[in-house]
Amino acid sequence: MDQATLADLLARCRAFRDARDWQRFHSAFNLIVSLNLEAAELLEFTQWQSEQGLAERLESDPDAKQALAHECADVMMYLLMLSDAAGIDLYRSVIDKLAINEARYPADKARGVSTKYRDL
Amino acid sequence: MDQATLADLLARCRAFRDARDWQRFHSAFNLIVSLNLEAAELLEFTQWQSEQGLAERLESDPDAKQALAHECADVMMYLLMLSDAAGIDLYRSVIDKLAINEARYPADKARGVSTKYRDL
Amino acid sequence: MDQATLADLLARCRAFRDARDWQRFHSAFNLIVSLNLEAAELLEFTQWQSEQGLAERLESDPDAKQALAHECADVMMYLLMLSDAAGIDLYRSVIDKLAINEARYPADKARGVSTKYRDL
Amino acid sequence: MDQATLADLLARCRAFRDARDWQRFHSAFNLIVSLNLEAAELLEFTQWQSEQGLAERLESDPDAKQALAHECADVMMYLLMLSDAAGIDLYRSVIDKLAINEARYPADKARGVSTKYRDL
Repeated sequence: MDQATLADLLARCRAFRDARDWQRFHSAFNLIVSLNLEAAELLEFTQWQSEQGLAERLESDPDAKQALAHECADVMMYLLMLSDAAGIDLYRSVIDKLAINEARYPADKARGVSTKYRDL
Repeated sequence: MDQATLADLLARCRAFRDARDWQRFHSAFNLIVSLNLEAAELLEFTQWQSEQGLAERLESDPDAKQALAHECADVMMYLLMLSDAAGIDLYRSVIDKLAINEARYPADKARGVSTKYRDL
Repeated sequence: MDQATLADLLARCRAFRDARDWQRFHSAFNLIVSLNLEAAELLEFTQWQSEQGLAERLESDPDAKQALAHECADVMMYLLMLSDAAGIDLYRSVIDKLAINEARYPADKARGVSTKYRDL
Repeated sequence: MDQATLADLLARCRAFRDARDWQRFHSAFNLIVSLNLEAAELLEFTQWQSEQGLAERLESDPDAKQALAHECADVMMYLLMLSDAAGIDLYRSVIDKLAINEARYPADKARGVSTKYRDL
Protein backbone atom coordinates (compact mmCIF):
# COMPACT_ATOMS: atom_id res chain seq x y z
CA MET A 1 0.00 0.00 0.00
CA ASP A 2 1.30 3.44 -0.94
CA GLN A 3 2.39 5.70 1.93
CA ALA A 4 2.42 8.74 -0.35
CA THR A 5 0.02 10.97 1.53
CA LEU A 6 1.37 10.76 5.06
CA ALA A 7 4.86 11.13 3.63
CA ASP A 8 3.68 14.09 1.58
CA LEU A 9 2.08 15.81 4.57
CA LEU A 10 5.15 15.15 6.70
CA ALA A 11 7.41 16.57 3.98
CA ARG A 12 5.32 19.74 3.85
CA CYS A 13 5.39 20.12 7.63
CA ARG A 14 9.15 19.61 7.68
CA ALA A 15 9.64 22.19 4.93
CA PHE A 16 7.54 24.69 6.89
CA ARG A 17 9.48 23.98 10.07
CA ASP A 18 12.93 24.10 8.50
CA ALA A 19 12.26 27.35 6.61
CA ARG A 20 11.81 28.89 10.07
CA ASP A 21 14.62 27.04 11.81
CA TRP A 22 12.12 25.64 14.28
CA GLN A 23 13.55 22.14 14.61
CA ARG A 24 15.31 23.31 17.77
CA PHE A 25 11.90 23.73 19.44
CA HIS A 26 10.43 20.49 18.10
CA SER A 27 11.37 18.03 20.81
CA ALA A 28 8.91 15.20 21.51
CA PHE A 29 8.21 16.93 24.83
CA ASN A 30 7.27 20.29 23.32
CA LEU A 31 5.23 18.72 20.53
CA ILE A 32 3.21 16.69 23.02
CA VAL A 33 2.35 19.87 24.92
CA SER A 34 1.36 21.69 21.73
CA LEU A 35 -0.69 18.74 20.50
CA ASN A 36 -2.61 18.83 23.79
CA LEU A 37 -3.28 22.55 23.37
CA GLU A 38 -4.68 21.93 19.90
CA ALA A 39 -6.81 19.06 21.21
CA ALA A 40 -8.22 21.55 23.72
CA GLU A 41 -9.13 23.86 20.83
CA LEU A 42 -11.22 20.98 19.51
CA LEU A 43 -12.74 20.49 22.96
CA GLU A 44 -13.97 24.09 22.86
CA PHE A 45 -16.50 22.98 20.25
CA THR A 46 -18.19 20.85 22.92
CA GLN A 47 -18.38 23.59 25.58
CA TRP A 48 -21.98 24.31 26.64
CA GLN A 49 -23.05 22.06 23.76
CA SER A 50 -24.97 18.83 23.44
CA GLU A 51 -23.95 16.03 21.11
CA GLN A 52 -26.96 16.83 18.92
CA GLY A 53 -26.35 20.58 19.09
CA LEU A 54 -22.80 20.25 17.81
CA ALA A 55 -23.90 17.94 14.99
CA GLU A 56 -26.51 20.49 13.90
CA ARG A 57 -24.04 23.36 14.13
CA LEU A 58 -21.55 21.56 11.91
CA GLU A 59 -24.36 20.81 9.42
CA SER A 60 -25.73 24.34 9.25
CA ASP A 61 -22.73 26.61 9.84
CA PRO A 62 -19.96 26.30 7.20
CA ASP A 63 -17.70 28.63 9.20
CA ALA A 64 -17.90 26.36 12.23
CA LYS A 65 -17.11 23.33 10.09
CA GLN A 66 -14.18 25.17 8.54
CA ALA A 67 -12.90 26.18 11.98
CA LEU A 68 -13.15 22.56 13.13
CA ALA A 69 -11.27 21.43 10.02
CA HIS A 70 -8.43 23.84 10.83
CA GLU A 71 -8.20 22.55 14.41
CA CYS A 72 -8.09 18.99 13.09
CA ALA A 73 -5.27 20.11 10.81
CA ASP A 74 -3.35 21.53 13.77
CA VAL A 75 -3.59 18.24 15.63
CA MET A 76 -2.53 16.36 12.50
CA MET A 77 0.51 18.58 11.96
CA TYR A 78 1.71 18.17 15.54
CA LEU A 79 1.08 14.44 15.37
CA LEU A 80 3.21 14.16 12.23
CA MET A 81 5.97 16.27 13.76
CA LEU A 82 5.85 14.30 17.01
CA SER A 83 6.12 11.01 15.16
CA ASP A 84 9.01 12.47 13.21
CA ALA A 85 10.78 13.71 16.35
CA ALA A 86 10.36 10.37 18.12
CA GLY A 87 11.32 8.22 15.14
CA ILE A 88 7.87 6.65 14.94
CA ASP A 89 6.25 5.34 11.75
CA LEU A 90 2.73 6.65 12.25
CA TYR A 91 1.19 4.46 9.54
CA ARG A 92 2.71 1.29 10.99
CA SER A 93 1.66 2.34 14.50
CA VAL A 94 -1.99 2.61 13.48
CA ILE A 95 -1.89 -0.81 11.78
CA ASP A 96 -0.32 -2.30 14.94
CA LYS A 97 -2.77 -0.63 17.31
CA LEU A 98 -5.75 -1.74 15.25
CA ALA A 99 -4.52 -5.33 15.58
CA ILE A 100 -4.27 -4.89 19.37
CA ASN A 101 -7.76 -3.42 19.45
CA GLU A 102 -9.09 -6.33 17.36
CA ALA A 103 -7.92 -8.65 20.15
CA ARG A 104 -9.14 -6.39 22.97
CA TYR A 105 -12.56 -5.81 21.47
CA PRO A 106 -13.74 -9.03 19.78
CA ALA A 107 -16.54 -8.02 17.41
CA ASP A 108 -19.07 -10.41 18.93
CA LYS A 109 -18.50 -9.15 22.48
CA ALA A 110 -18.10 -5.46 21.70
CA ARG A 111 -20.97 -5.09 19.24
CA GLY A 112 -23.12 -2.09 20.07
CA VAL A 113 -21.60 -1.43 23.49
CA SER A 114 -19.08 1.24 24.50
CA THR A 115 -17.64 -0.80 27.40
CA LYS A 116 -13.88 -0.57 28.02
CA TYR A 117 -11.95 -3.72 27.12
CA ARG A 118 -11.01 -4.32 30.77
CA ASP A 119 -14.71 -4.74 31.54
CA LEU A 120 -15.76 -6.74 28.48
CA MET B 1 -0.27 13.36 -5.00
CA ASP B 2 -1.94 10.08 -4.10
CA GLN B 3 -4.22 10.14 -1.04
CA ALA B 4 -3.99 6.37 -0.70
CA THR B 5 -2.64 6.16 2.79
CA LEU B 6 -5.01 8.42 4.66
CA ALA B 7 -7.87 6.81 2.74
CA ASP B 8 -6.45 3.39 3.59
CA LEU B 9 -6.17 4.18 7.30
CA LEU B 10 -9.65 5.64 7.34
CA ALA B 11 -11.04 2.55 5.57
CA ARG B 12 -9.44 0.32 8.21
CA CYS B 13 -10.81 2.43 11.06
CA ARG B 14 -14.28 2.37 9.50
CA ALA B 15 -14.15 -1.41 9.06
CA PHE B 16 -13.16 -1.80 12.72
CA ARG B 17 -15.95 0.52 13.82
CA ASP B 18 -18.65 -1.00 11.67
CA ALA B 19 -17.82 -4.60 12.63
CA ARG B 20 -18.74 -3.52 16.17
CA ASP B 21 -21.71 -1.37 15.27
CA TRP B 22 -20.01 1.59 16.94
CA GLN B 23 -21.04 4.28 14.45
CA ARG B 24 -23.88 5.19 16.81
CA PHE B 25 -21.31 6.35 19.38
CA HIS B 26 -19.09 8.15 16.88
CA SER B 27 -20.54 11.64 16.89
CA ALA B 28 -18.14 14.55 16.41
CA PHE B 29 -18.81 15.43 20.06
CA ASN B 30 -17.85 12.03 21.44
CA LEU B 31 -14.82 11.70 19.19
CA ILE B 32 -13.51 15.08 20.32
CA VAL B 33 -13.75 13.97 23.95
CA SER B 34 -11.98 10.69 23.21
CA LEU B 35 -9.28 12.41 21.17
CA ASN B 36 -8.60 14.67 24.17
CA LEU B 37 -8.30 11.66 26.46
CA GLU B 38 -5.75 10.09 24.11
CA ALA B 39 -3.86 13.39 23.93
CA ALA B 40 -3.68 13.26 27.73
CA GLU B 41 -2.14 9.77 27.49
CA LEU B 42 0.59 11.40 25.43
CA LEU B 43 0.94 14.15 28.03
CA GLU B 44 1.67 11.49 30.67
CA PHE B 45 5.04 11.00 28.99
CA THR B 46 5.98 14.53 30.07
CA GLN B 47 4.94 14.14 33.73
CA TRP B 48 7.86 14.75 36.13
CA GLN B 49 10.10 14.74 33.05
CA SER B 50 12.39 17.24 31.41
CA GLU B 51 12.58 17.77 27.67
CA GLN B 52 16.01 16.14 27.66
CA GLY B 53 14.91 13.34 29.97
CA LEU B 54 12.08 12.31 27.67
CA ALA B 55 14.34 12.43 24.61
CA GLU B 56 16.83 10.12 26.34
CA ARG B 57 14.10 7.77 27.49
CA LEU B 58 12.72 7.42 23.97
CA GLU B 59 16.26 6.76 22.70
CA SER B 60 17.17 4.15 25.29
CA ASP B 61 13.88 2.40 26.12
CA PRO B 62 12.21 0.64 23.16
CA ASP B 63 9.14 -0.16 25.27
CA ALA B 64 8.60 3.51 26.03
CA LYS B 65 8.96 4.36 22.35
CA GLN B 66 6.52 1.61 21.43
CA ALA B 67 4.04 2.87 24.04
CA LEU B 68 4.34 6.39 22.64
CA ALA B 69 3.77 5.03 19.11
CA HIS B 70 0.55 3.36 20.26
CA GLU B 71 -0.71 6.57 21.86
CA CYS B 72 0.09 8.45 18.65
CA ALA B 73 -1.94 5.80 16.82
CA ASP B 74 -4.88 6.34 19.14
CA VAL B 75 -4.87 10.06 18.44
CA MET B 76 -4.58 9.37 14.71
CA MET B 77 -7.52 6.97 14.71
CA TYR B 78 -9.79 9.39 16.56
CA LEU B 79 -8.67 12.21 14.28
CA LEU B 80 -9.58 10.16 11.20
CA MET B 81 -12.94 9.18 12.68
CA LEU B 82 -13.65 12.75 13.73
CA SER B 83 -12.88 14.07 10.27
CA ASP B 84 -15.11 11.35 8.86
CA ALA B 85 -17.98 12.17 11.24
CA ALA B 86 -17.76 15.89 10.49
CA GLY B 87 -17.37 15.51 6.72
CA ILE B 88 -13.89 17.02 6.75
CA ASP B 89 -11.13 16.20 4.25
CA LEU B 90 -8.19 15.95 6.61
CA TYR B 91 -5.57 16.10 3.85
CA ARG B 92 -7.07 19.23 2.33
CA SER B 93 -7.40 20.81 5.79
CA VAL B 94 -3.69 20.43 6.47
CA ILE B 95 -2.79 21.93 3.09
CA ASP B 96 -5.12 24.87 3.81
CA LYS B 97 -3.85 25.41 7.34
CA LEU B 98 -0.23 25.32 6.20
CA ALA B 99 -1.04 28.13 3.75
CA ILE B 100 -2.60 30.15 6.57
CA ASN B 101 0.46 29.52 8.74
CA GLU B 102 2.77 30.59 5.89
CA ALA B 103 1.03 33.98 5.98
CA ARG B 104 0.95 34.20 9.78
CA TYR B 105 4.56 33.23 10.24
CA PRO B 106 6.63 34.77 7.43
CA ALA B 107 9.90 32.84 7.35
CA ASP B 108 12.08 35.92 7.73
CA LYS B 109 10.22 37.15 10.82
CA ALA B 110 9.62 33.79 12.48
CA ARG B 111 13.09 32.32 11.98
CA GLY B 112 14.43 30.83 15.16
CA VAL B 113 11.79 32.30 17.48
CA SER B 114 8.76 30.59 19.01
CA THR B 115 6.71 33.80 19.27
CA LYS B 116 2.96 33.54 18.55
CA TYR B 117 1.85 35.15 15.30
CA ARG B 118 -0.18 37.79 17.18
CA ASP B 119 3.08 39.05 18.70
CA LEU B 120 5.32 38.78 15.65
CA MET C 1 -13.80 36.17 56.14
CA ASP C 2 -11.61 33.48 57.63
CA GLN C 3 -9.15 31.85 55.23
CA ALA C 4 -8.72 28.85 57.54
CA THR C 5 -9.78 26.12 55.19
CA LEU C 6 -7.71 26.86 52.14
CA ALA C 7 -4.78 27.48 54.45
CA ASP C 8 -5.54 24.22 56.22
CA LEU C 9 -5.69 22.24 52.98
CA LEU C 10 -2.51 23.84 51.74
CA ALA C 11 -0.74 23.06 55.03
CA ARG C 12 -1.76 19.40 54.72
CA CYS C 13 -0.57 19.21 51.10
CA ARG C 14 2.75 20.80 52.05
CA ALA C 15 3.22 18.37 54.94
CA PHE C 16 2.55 15.45 52.60
CA ARG C 17 4.97 16.83 50.04
CA ASP C 18 7.75 17.66 52.47
CA ALA C 19 7.60 14.28 54.25
CA ARG C 20 8.57 12.80 50.86
CA ASP C 21 11.07 15.48 49.88
CA TRP C 22 9.01 16.17 46.76
CA GLN C 23 9.41 19.93 46.68
CA ARG C 24 12.21 19.47 44.16
CA PHE C 25 9.64 18.13 41.66
CA HIS C 26 6.99 20.74 42.42
CA SER C 27 7.85 23.47 39.95
CA ALA C 28 4.96 25.48 38.50
CA PHE C 29 5.72 23.75 35.18
CA ASN C 30 5.43 20.22 36.52
CA LEU C 31 2.36 21.00 38.60
CA ILE C 32 0.56 22.45 35.57
CA VAL C 33 1.23 19.24 33.64
CA SER C 34 -0.01 17.09 36.52
CA LEU C 35 -3.08 19.25 37.01
CA ASN C 36 -3.93 18.73 33.35
CA LEU C 37 -3.56 14.97 33.73
CA GLU C 38 -5.97 15.01 36.67
CA ALA C 39 -8.41 17.17 34.70
CA ALA C 40 -8.30 14.48 32.01
CA GLU C 41 -9.25 11.90 34.64
CA LEU C 42 -12.35 13.99 35.23
CA LEU C 43 -12.97 14.15 31.49
CA GLU C 44 -13.06 10.35 31.38
CA PHE C 45 -16.41 10.56 33.17
CA THR C 46 -17.87 12.20 30.05
CA GLN C 47 -16.52 9.62 27.58
CA TRP C 48 -19.34 7.94 25.59
CA GLN C 49 -21.74 9.66 27.99
CA SER C 50 -24.54 12.17 27.66
CA GLU C 51 -25.06 15.05 30.06
CA GLN C 52 -28.17 13.30 31.40
CA GLY C 53 -26.46 9.92 31.54
CA LEU C 54 -23.65 11.23 33.72
CA ALA C 55 -26.10 12.98 36.04
CA GLU C 56 -28.04 9.73 36.50
CA ARG C 57 -24.88 7.72 37.05
CA LEU C 58 -23.71 10.10 39.79
CA GLU C 59 -27.17 9.89 41.40
CA SER C 60 -27.44 6.10 41.34
CA ASP C 61 -23.87 4.85 41.68
CA PRO C 62 -22.13 5.86 44.94
CA ASP C 63 -18.83 4.37 43.72
CA ALA C 64 -18.87 6.59 40.66
CA LYS C 65 -19.60 9.62 42.81
CA GLN C 66 -16.78 8.66 45.16
CA ALA C 67 -14.40 8.22 42.23
CA LEU C 68 -15.39 11.65 40.91
CA ALA C 69 -14.82 13.15 44.37
CA HIS C 70 -11.29 11.73 44.45
CA GLU C 71 -10.49 13.15 41.01
CA CYS C 72 -11.80 16.53 42.17
CA ALA C 73 -9.49 16.22 45.17
CA ASP C 74 -6.50 15.53 42.91
CA VAL C 75 -7.21 18.68 40.90
CA MET C 76 -7.62 20.65 44.13
CA MET C 77 -4.34 19.43 45.56
CA TYR C 78 -2.38 20.29 42.42
CA LEU C 79 -4.09 23.67 42.26
CA LEU C 80 -3.07 24.44 45.85
CA MET C 81 0.50 23.30 45.20
CA LEU C 82 0.68 25.26 41.95
CA SER C 83 -0.54 28.42 43.67
CA ASP C 84 2.02 27.80 46.39
CA ALA C 85 4.86 27.26 43.91
CA ALA C 86 3.96 30.39 41.95
CA GLY C 87 3.41 32.62 44.99
CA ILE C 88 -0.27 33.09 44.19
CA ASP C 89 -3.01 33.74 46.77
CA LEU C 90 -5.71 31.45 45.39
CA TYR C 91 -8.49 32.99 47.48
CA ARG C 92 -7.62 36.53 46.37
CA SER C 93 -7.35 35.36 42.76
CA VAL C 94 -10.89 34.00 42.77
CA ILE C 95 -12.25 37.22 44.29
CA ASP C 96 -10.40 39.23 41.61
CA LYS C 97 -11.52 37.02 38.74
CA LEU C 98 -15.13 37.12 39.89
CA ALA C 99 -14.97 40.91 39.72
CA ILE C 100 -13.60 40.72 36.18
CA ASN C 101 -16.35 38.29 35.23
CA GLU C 102 -18.97 40.58 36.75
CA ALA C 103 -17.85 43.25 34.28
CA ARG C 104 -17.55 40.86 31.33
CA TYR C 105 -20.92 39.23 31.92
CA PRO C 106 -23.40 41.90 33.07
CA ALA C 107 -26.28 40.03 34.66
CA ASP C 108 -28.91 41.60 32.43
CA LYS C 109 -27.09 40.72 29.20
CA ALA C 110 -25.82 37.30 30.21
CA ARG C 111 -29.01 35.99 31.81
CA GLY C 112 -29.89 32.53 30.56
CA VAL C 113 -27.38 32.49 27.69
CA SER C 114 -24.00 30.73 27.51
CA THR C 115 -22.50 33.19 25.03
CA LYS C 116 -18.81 34.11 25.45
CA TYR C 117 -18.23 37.64 26.69
CA ARG C 118 -16.56 38.63 23.41
CA ASP C 119 -19.88 37.98 21.67
CA LEU C 120 -22.24 39.45 24.27
CA MET D 1 -11.27 23.30 61.52
CA ASP D 2 -13.34 26.08 60.05
CA GLN D 3 -14.64 25.52 56.50
CA ALA D 4 -15.40 29.23 56.08
CA THR D 5 -13.29 29.94 53.06
CA LEU D 6 -14.32 27.19 50.71
CA ALA D 7 -17.92 27.81 51.72
CA ASP D 8 -17.39 31.52 51.15
CA LEU D 9 -15.92 31.00 47.69
CA LEU D 10 -18.67 28.58 46.78
CA ALA D 11 -21.33 31.05 47.96
CA ARG D 12 -19.81 33.76 45.77
CA CYS D 13 -19.68 31.48 42.74
CA ARG D 14 -23.29 30.43 43.30
CA ALA D 15 -24.40 34.06 43.59
CA PHE D 16 -22.63 34.89 40.33
CA ARG D 17 -24.21 31.89 38.61
CA ASP D 18 -27.71 32.47 39.90
CA ALA D 19 -27.75 36.20 39.04
CA ARG D 20 -27.31 35.03 35.43
CA ASP D 21 -29.67 32.06 35.59
CA TRP D 22 -26.79 29.80 34.57
CA GLN D 23 -27.61 26.82 36.77
CA ARG D 24 -29.34 25.23 33.79
CA PHE D 25 -25.92 25.00 32.05
CA HIS D 26 -24.03 23.82 35.12
CA SER D 27 -24.35 20.06 34.85
CA ALA D 28 -21.42 17.97 36.09
CA PHE D 29 -20.80 17.08 32.43
CA ASN D 30 -20.54 20.67 31.22
CA LEU D 31 -18.47 21.77 34.19
CA ILE D 32 -15.96 18.98 33.60
CA VAL D 33 -15.54 20.12 29.99
CA SER D 34 -15.07 23.75 31.05
CA LEU D 35 -12.63 22.80 33.80
CA ASN D 36 -10.54 20.97 31.20
CA LEU D 37 -10.54 24.03 28.95
CA GLU D 38 -9.27 26.17 31.83
CA ALA D 39 -6.63 23.58 32.66
CA ALA D 40 -5.48 23.90 29.03
CA GLU D 41 -5.16 27.66 29.53
CA LEU D 42 -2.72 26.84 32.32
CA LEU D 43 -0.91 24.41 30.03
CA GLU D 44 -0.31 27.26 27.57
CA PHE D 45 2.19 28.65 30.08
CA THR D 46 4.38 25.60 29.45
CA GLN D 47 4.30 25.82 25.63
CA TRP D 48 7.79 26.21 24.11
CA GLN D 49 9.01 26.74 27.69
CA SER D 50 11.40 24.95 29.99
CA GLU D 51 10.75 24.34 33.66
CA GLN D 52 13.42 26.91 34.51
CA GLY D 53 12.18 29.36 31.89
CA LEU D 54 8.68 29.41 33.30
CA ALA D 55 9.97 29.85 36.86
CA GLU D 56 12.04 32.85 35.77
CA ARG D 57 9.15 34.35 33.81
CA LEU D 58 6.85 34.14 36.84
CA GLU D 59 9.57 35.75 38.97
CA SER D 60 10.31 38.63 36.62
CA ASP D 61 7.01 39.35 34.86
CA PRO D 62 4.17 40.43 37.19
CA ASP D 63 1.68 40.38 34.29
CA ALA D 64 2.47 36.74 33.58
CA LYS D 65 2.06 35.88 37.26
CA GLN D 66 -1.24 37.77 37.34
CA ALA D 67 -2.44 35.94 34.22
CA LEU D 68 -1.50 32.62 35.80
CA ALA D 69 -3.37 33.59 38.98
CA HIS D 70 -6.51 34.28 36.94
CA GLU D 71 -6.30 30.92 35.19
CA CYS D 72 -5.88 29.24 38.59
CA ALA D 73 -9.00 31.10 39.69
CA ASP D 74 -10.95 29.81 36.69
CA VAL D 75 -10.02 26.23 37.53
CA MET D 76 -10.95 26.82 41.16
CA MET D 77 -14.36 28.25 40.27
CA TYR D 78 -15.22 25.36 37.99
CA LEU D 79 -14.00 22.90 40.59
CA LEU D 80 -16.25 24.46 43.23
CA MET D 81 -19.22 24.47 40.85
CA LEU D 82 -18.56 20.89 39.79
CA SER D 83 -18.39 19.72 43.40
CA ASP D 84 -21.60 21.60 44.03
CA ALA D 85 -23.37 20.08 41.01
CA ALA D 86 -22.27 16.56 41.94
CA GLY D 87 -23.05 16.87 45.65
CA ILE D 88 -19.40 16.45 46.62
CA ASP D 89 -17.79 17.95 49.74
CA LEU D 90 -14.52 19.16 48.25
CA TYR D 91 -12.83 19.66 51.62
CA ARG D 92 -13.69 16.16 52.80
CA SER D 93 -12.58 14.70 49.45
CA VAL D 94 -9.12 16.21 49.79
CA ILE D 95 -8.76 14.88 53.34
CA ASP D 96 -9.84 11.41 52.13
CA LYS D 97 -7.57 11.42 49.12
CA LEU D 98 -4.58 12.53 51.19
CA ALA D 99 -5.17 9.51 53.45
CA ILE D 100 -5.23 7.24 50.39
CA ASN D 101 -2.02 8.82 49.11
CA GLU D 102 -0.39 8.37 52.51
CA ALA D 103 -0.95 4.62 52.11
CA ARG D 104 0.06 4.53 48.45
CA TYR D 105 3.23 6.56 48.95
CA PRO D 106 4.82 5.58 52.28
CA ALA D 107 7.22 8.39 53.16
CA ASP D 108 10.22 6.08 53.51
CA LYS D 109 9.73 4.49 50.07
CA ALA D 110 8.64 7.59 48.18
CA ARG D 111 11.24 9.99 49.53
CA GLY D 112 12.90 11.94 46.76
CA VAL D 113 11.52 9.84 43.88
CA SER D 114 8.66 10.64 41.51
CA THR D 115 7.79 6.98 40.86
CA LYS D 116 4.08 6.09 40.51
CA TYR D 117 2.67 4.12 43.41
CA ARG D 118 2.09 1.07 41.20
CA ASP D 119 5.85 0.87 40.68
CA LEU D 120 7.02 1.69 44.21
